[in-house]
Amino acid sequence: MIPYCGKPIKSRSKYNEVFTNICHLPAGHDGKCDELWFLNHLSKESPRVADKIRRDAFFTTGASWKSAIAGPNRILRPVMLLDDAELLKHGINMADMKPQVIRKLRDKAADYASCIQVAMKLTWLTYQIPGAPEAPQVTRDFLEHLFGEFSPPAQCPICLLPLDYSLFEQAQRGTALIETCHIDPRAHNADNVGFGHRHCNIAQGNKSLEEFYSWIEGILNRARE
Amino acid sequence: MIPYCGKPIKSRSKYNEVFTNICHLPAGHDGKCDELWFLNHLSKESPRVADKIRRDAFFTTGASWKSAIAGPNRILRPVMLLDDAELLKHGINMADMKPQVIRKLRDKAADYASCIQVAMKLTWLTYQIPGAPEAPQVTRDFLEHLFGEFSPPAQCPICLLPLDYSLFEQAQRGTALIETCHIDPRAHNADNVGFGHRHCNIAQGNKSLEEFYSWIEGILNRARE
Repeated sequence: MIPYCGKPIKSRSKYNEVFTNICHLPAGHDGKCDELWFLNHLSKESPRVADKIRRDAFFTTGASWKSAIAGPNRILRPVMLLDDAELLKHGINMADMKPQVIRKLRDKAADYASCIQVAMKLTWLTYQIPGAPEAPQVTRDFLEHLFGEFSPPAQCPICLLPLDYSLFEQAQRGTALIETCHIDPRAHNADNVGFGHRHCNIAQGNKSLEEFYSWIEGILNRARE
Repeated sequence: MIPYCGKPIKSRSKYNEVFTNICHLPAGHDGKCDELWFLNHLSKESPRVADKIRRDAFFTTGASWKSAIAGPNRILRPVMLLDDAELLKHGINMADMKPQVIRKLRDKAADYASCIQVAMKLTWLTYQIPGAPEAPQVTRDFLEHLFGEFSPPAQCPICLLPLDYSLFEQAQRGTALIETCHIDPRAHNADNVGFGHRHCNIAQGNKSLEEFYSWIEGILNRARE
C-alpha cells in the first residue's frame, strides 16, 4: 500500500463535521495537497467520466430528481451513516420518507475511506476499457500498485463481455450506458464495485450477482424444458 | 367468436374523431350498451386492478410524470397512430421530443380493437391468478370463449413461476409488483401480452422474450465456465 500524505484538506462543505477530506498524494509529495489527484487526467480528457466516478463513488444515486417516491436528491454516502436526529440538523428529514426510500438510502451509506477506494478502483477500471485515454505513468503506477496490473479489455462484471468507452457517452433515459455495478448491491467498497452495462445492472436489480445468476438459471431451466 | 353488439357509444373524449368507443356486450343484449362490461365485476372487487387493466390496455405507459426525458404523460395508444401534424392539433408536439421518446411512444401505438382485445386478455389472465376473486359465470363464459378455459395458476410469462394476486397491491417505486409484459415489446395485441413480475419485466427490458432467454443463456455460459 502506498502511504498517503493524509493531511486534511480544507473544505467549505456543510458536512465538515461529518468527515474530513484528506490528501491522497503519496506521502512526502511536492506541491499542494490534492484529494482526488488520480482523477485529474481523466477530468481533462473525459470530464463527464471523471464526474461520474466522483458522483458514483461519493453519492447515493437513485433518481436525480426530487419526489416523494424517489426521495431527496443525491446525498453524500458518508452523511447517510448519521442517525435520523443528526440528519435532521442537516435538513434531511427521514421521517418524511417512505420505508423503501429509507432502506435504499441506508443501503447506500458508506464511510469516507470506502468512497475514496471506490473512486480509485473505478479509475483503475476506466483506463482498462477499450477506447479509454492512456493513463499518465504516475497515475498508472499508483493504481496498479493498489489493484494490480492493467489487463484490458475491462469486462462488464455481470454479462462478462468487454465494455467500450463510447458507452459512457451514450445515454438512455438520461443515464449513461455504462453504470457502476455492485457484486453485492448493499456493499459500497472497492472489492465490490465495477463498471458494467446499464441494461445488465438493471436486470441484476437488487440481487447479488450470485443470486442473479441462480435466478436466471432457474428461468432458463423452466423456459428450455 | 362471440358477435359483439358493436354499436357506437357516445363519449365526451376529445379524441372522438380518432376512434369510436363501441359496445362489447353480446349482440342482441338487453339494457344499455357497455364498452368494457367484462371489467365491471373487477371494478367493484378490485378497482385498482381494473384501473390497471384499462390503463395498460389503452395508454402508452412510460413515466407517470411529465419531463423532457420521459416525454408527455400517458397518451391513448390509438392516438399515437396519428401523424405528427394530426398530433399537433391535439396539443402533442412530437418535434419537441427526443428521438428515444418518440420511438418509445410510436412503438406503443395500437389500434382501438387491439386495445380492447388486450383488456379482455388481461381480464382473462387476472381471474386465473391465485388469490383473484371468482369471475361471474357470464364474464367467465365470455372470456373462456375468446381465450380458452381458465387453468390457474396464471404464470409470469418471463420466469414461468406462478403469480400471486397480492402482488397487485404491493408496489415498488410507485409501480405494482405485477406489470403488463409483452413477449415482443413492440406489439400490443392479445397474443403478445401477459401479466408478469415487475422485476422480470424490467430484466427483459426492450428485448423480445426469446432474445432475453438467449441473452441470459450467454451470460450463464460465461459465468459458469
